[in-house]
Amino acid sequence: MKQSEMLLPTLKETPADAEIKSHQLLVRAGYIRQIASGIYSFLPIGKRILRKVEDVVREEMEKIGAHEMMMPALQPSELWKESSRWSTFGSELMRIDDRNNREFALGATHEEVITSIVRDEIKSYKRLPLLVFQIQNKFRDEARPRFGLLRGREFLMKDAYSFDDSFESLDKSYDKMFQAYTNIFTRLGLNFRAVIADSGAMGGKDTHEFMVLSEVGEDVIAYSDTSQYAANIEMAPVIREYKKSGDEPKEMSKVETPEQRTMKDVADFLGHELKEGLKAIMFKVDERFVMAVTRGDHEVNDVKLKNLYSAGIVELASEADTKRLMGTGFGSLGPVGVSEEVEVVADFAVEALQNVSCGANEDGFHLRNVTPGIDFQPSQYADLRFIEEGDPSPDGQGTIKFARGIEVGHVFKLGTFYAEHMNAQFLDDQGKAQTMVMGSYGIGVSRTLAALVEQNHDDRGITWPANIAPFQVHLLSMNPKKAEQADLADKLNAQLEEAGIEVLYDDRKERAGVKFADSDLIGIPLRITVGKRAADGIVELKERVSGEQQEIEASQVIEQVKTWYKH
Amino acid sequence: MKQSEMLLPTLKETPADAEIKSHQLLVRAGYIRQIASGIYSFLPIGKRILRKVEDVVREEMEKIGAHEMMMPALQPSELWKESSRWSTFGSELMRIDDRNNREFALGATHEEVITSIVRDEIKSYKRLPLLVFQIQNKFRDEARPRFGLLRGREFLMKDAYSFDDSFESLDKSYDKMFQAYTNIFTRLGLNFRAVIADSGAMGGKDTHEFMVLSEVGEDVIAYSDTSQYAANIEMAPVIREYKKSGDEPKEMSKVETPEQRTMKDVADFLGHELKEGLKAIMFKVDERFVMAVTRGDHEVNDVKLKNLYSAGIVELASEADTKRLMGTGFGSLGPVGVSEEVEVVADFAVEALQNVSCGANEDGFHLRNVTPGIDFQPSQYADLRFIEEGDPSPDGQGTIKFARGIEVGHVFKLGTFYAEHMNAQFLDDQGKAQTMVMGSYGIGVSRTLAALVEQNHDDRGITWPANIAPFQVHLLSMNPKKAEQADLADKLNAQLEEAGIEVLYDDRKERAGVKFADSDLIGIPLRITVGKRAADGIVELKERVSGEQQEIEASQVIEQVKTWYKH
Repeated sequence: MKQSEMLLPTLKETPADAEIKSHQLLVRAGYIRQIASGIYSFLPIGKRILRKVEDVVREEMEKIGAHEMMMPALQPSELWKESSRWSTFGSELMRIDDRNNREFALGATHEEVITSIVRDEIKSYKRLPLLVFQIQNKFRDEARPRFGLLRGREFLMKDAYSFDDSFESLDKSYDKMFQAYTNIFTRLGLNFRAVIADSGAMGGKDTHEFMVLSEVGEDVIAYSDTSQYAANIEMAPVIREYKKSGDEPKEMSKVETPEQRTMKDVADFLGHELKEGLKAIMFKVDERFVMAVTRGDHEVNDVKLKNLYSAGIVELASEADTKRLMGTGFGSLGPVGVSEEVEVVADFAVEALQNVSCGANEDGFHLRNVTPGIDFQPSQYADLRFIEEGDPSPDGQGTIKFARGIEVGHVFKLGTFYAEHMNAQFLDDQGKAQTMVMGSYGIGVSRTLAALVEQNHDDRGITWPANIAPFQVHLLSMNPKKAEQADLADKLNAQLEEAGIEVLYDDRKERAGVKFADSDLIGIPLRITVGKRAADGIVELKERVSGEQQEIEASQVIEQVKTWYKH
Repeated sequence: MKQSEMLLPTLKETPADAEIKSHQLLVRAGYIRQIASGIYSFLPIGKRILRKVEDVVREEMEKIGAHEMMMPALQPSELWKESSRWSTFGSELMRIDDRNNREFALGATHEEVITSIVRDEIKSYKRLPLLVFQIQNKFRDEARPRFGLLRGREFLMKDAYSFDDSFESLDKSYDKMFQAYTNIFTRLGLNFRAVIADSGAMGGKDTHEFMVLSEVGEDVIAYSDTSQYAANIEMAPVIREYKKSGDEPKEMSKVETPEQRTMKDVADFLGHELKEGLKAIMFKVDERFVMAVTRGDHEVNDVKLKNLYSAGIVELASEADTKRLMGTGFGSLGPVGVSEEVEVVADFAVEALQNVSCGANEDGFHLRNVTPGIDFQPSQYADLRFIEEGDPSPDGQGTIKFARGIEVGHVFKLGTFYAEHMNAQFLDDQGKAQTMVMGSYGIGVSRTLAALVEQNHDDRGITWPANIAPFQVHLLSMNPKKAEQADLADKLNAQLEEAGIEVLYDDRKERAGVKFADSDLIGIPLRITVGKRAADGIVELKERVSGEQQEIEASQVIEQVKTWYKH
């Protein structure tokens, strides 16, 4: 493909709004252009590499017997109301009225549409299990679109859905999909982990996220330094392993703590460590108010709080509600003497504490020598805190470390949530009506592209791995004005194409420095340069990643390229 | 692919809302399902055939050096305001606000987006010409979605755009695209015509529509019975070939025509032929009022009127405006004694008339013996009427016939409309700023699928042509409960797949009659039935279109199929 005929604009400067490498490089190397916040066009080379990722995904989906289909982006609100998501999805769901004022959602996912189709068409257990997928643009009106393709508002997604006649059968569909995802990200050469994730409010059971390890990832993964255990930090349970000090409980007393605003301030002022104080935070859990109490050095995990109450929405209580209920602001909250309107729950770690300090529910005052169980009684102790590095791994093997990850895939046992809401039933082999059991499986295809670049770049540009590059060879003619260079390059281009090798041919009348810089930026694994020694039939072959280069005879190019790609 | 594992629901009954064959058959045979009016899901076999059409389109686009890209569906209104289409596109353009109340259009086409990209990235004549395309869902809020995939609101489209440095260069890009379109529709085996079409208000020049000939087409094509001439009926000029009768003009007189409402009523009442009367219709052409006068048996072509005035909007004048300006309603309008507020234009055919009748601009009265040029003087005579069957062909060869067509493609010389509105300029070889010259080229991919079915079906179902079928072979096991049939069918399925032949394998436990009927409905060109003679290694091979069938040895299946497809 001739570069001179291609819309492949490169930039020397890093775009001001691009904070991370994949965003910077995909824009600079001419793969994408922003059209609006979180909305991108894929220029020809970007579309090309995107299709290659798509092809890997499609192949692995087909291997496990999933069939491709295509559902519309415009989805009638009636379907979303049936599933209840019209109200629960919130403002990320884009909504549009047609000319007759009928409401539609712009597809964020397609559970509702596929469930409505399967409900209408599948009546018998004989037609189950069923596995379908599609690869298509999705729409989510993110509050803060950022990081280029990592968090966009219109993005390419592979979504798949399974329908089974039992939970046991769902387990099999899920395992197949899990394996396919493992194959996909392995084939793409990504360094990733499948981590246990939050199944959220949708009544689902197992769920895993596929995380590409990367500094710029928005999620934190807790993993064992010894075993395969890995979980989203929100999901990792903390093993209940706290020992009491054995000290005698002392008498609680109130002390003035003027101007001490943070936990750290108070601990320093009172002369103890952070972990010798209690942290109390007021939440609104659906309609009730809950004070969550942890050790001063621990952090409340609101997902655990949500799961504890099987709640729909957990949010921080407002300062106004807090003042009304507790008579004080956020800075002096504590679990002692709390009104019945507020439920106090405490983390397991709190149960082991004695003679600690906490807010006195009075501005500028704290309590000392507070002992849980004596000075206050929580409604229950539970696993409420985030796991931390150094904690024992929940599977009992090794200790926990943290890494950051980019979520590129998600497999989810939905169970009967949608099927029940939307009445998707089938007749079993006894002729009895049963509810279908579903799974939902997503891959962020455009996000995966960004993750690939995060893991494959250097100072000069992108470094595509051999198995997933937009082209296999970048052919450069150094000085196309010289006939012998132009002729040899033209000939090599034709030969490479003839041999079925994907070649990008830089035939532009540009300076050598520009061509080399652009080539490094674009990142094709092998570069062949036709330069001064063209007259002798000698060209240069260079590896993008290692930088190794050698002069070879032009007649050897095809063979060398093929050999290189076989390794 | 095993049919038992596929979402491929067939229907015995014709859906009540499906008026035309392609709609009926694509639904009945399990290719598509409606999600909302004009919005469809493509079930796996539908997606499969759609991809095959897509692949043909993509290949031919790439052959002419067009590069695939992908632009977003969400397009900022700012771009559409720049081009002026935000206001001119009307209610077919779907509009949506994001969470920050920024307005977006849902991509109906992508001229604005691609022009904004090229404007920003291409600065030099050296990077022109440029040819890009994409294959992607488009959104148009049709007032009357109907005919299944023929007129939908979300549909798959290939859109391409060319950017050139001159009109001469645009001609070349256009010709390349025209040839590619011809190749595409020829490869799909469609009976089609490229017809001259209306370039509309966008300042374009040449434009052709590619029409698949079909009774259910919404467009009428005027074509020569002798030459290659073909045009959209709205666009075909009428040759000015009218002879005067030579009669002496008589004196005009007013006659009462009580209760005579239609042209036909009046002609009968006055005892003359339709063509001996004048038809006068009041239009609002942008801001002015125009009375268009034709011979009584002719029809005014409002596209010609629009082009005559280079107008943006031509619509019928309201009855209220007509009464105010003419003192009478629609039924008694005529060109005699018209106030200066109204411009009278007449078709060329009118100039040749003498002693004809027309409305008297007074309810219940007409004028007789009216002679144009004597009793009234139009501001001009022009080609205003629709061409009719029997008219001479505009190219001077043969006479005109009509056919109906489905518009599946459209090539359009946009010229500088968008580039001027959006300031897309480049520097020419003299370093001087010039405006880019554009072309726009569309193919309705999902509509083409419907057109294929309109041209390929019989009483029993779809009859895919050999070169564009969803599968090459439909393999049926008559009675999978019998081991020898199931085993042989399983073996043949594996062998066919191994040989790279696309096979749909009906392994369902259904009655033979159901399987045969479904197979005819789905329409795969070749059917192989494993039945009673399985034990002898004998199967049946049947051609879907001809119905020819023969018994062959199972060991010959691969070879026979391959041979059949080579022809």
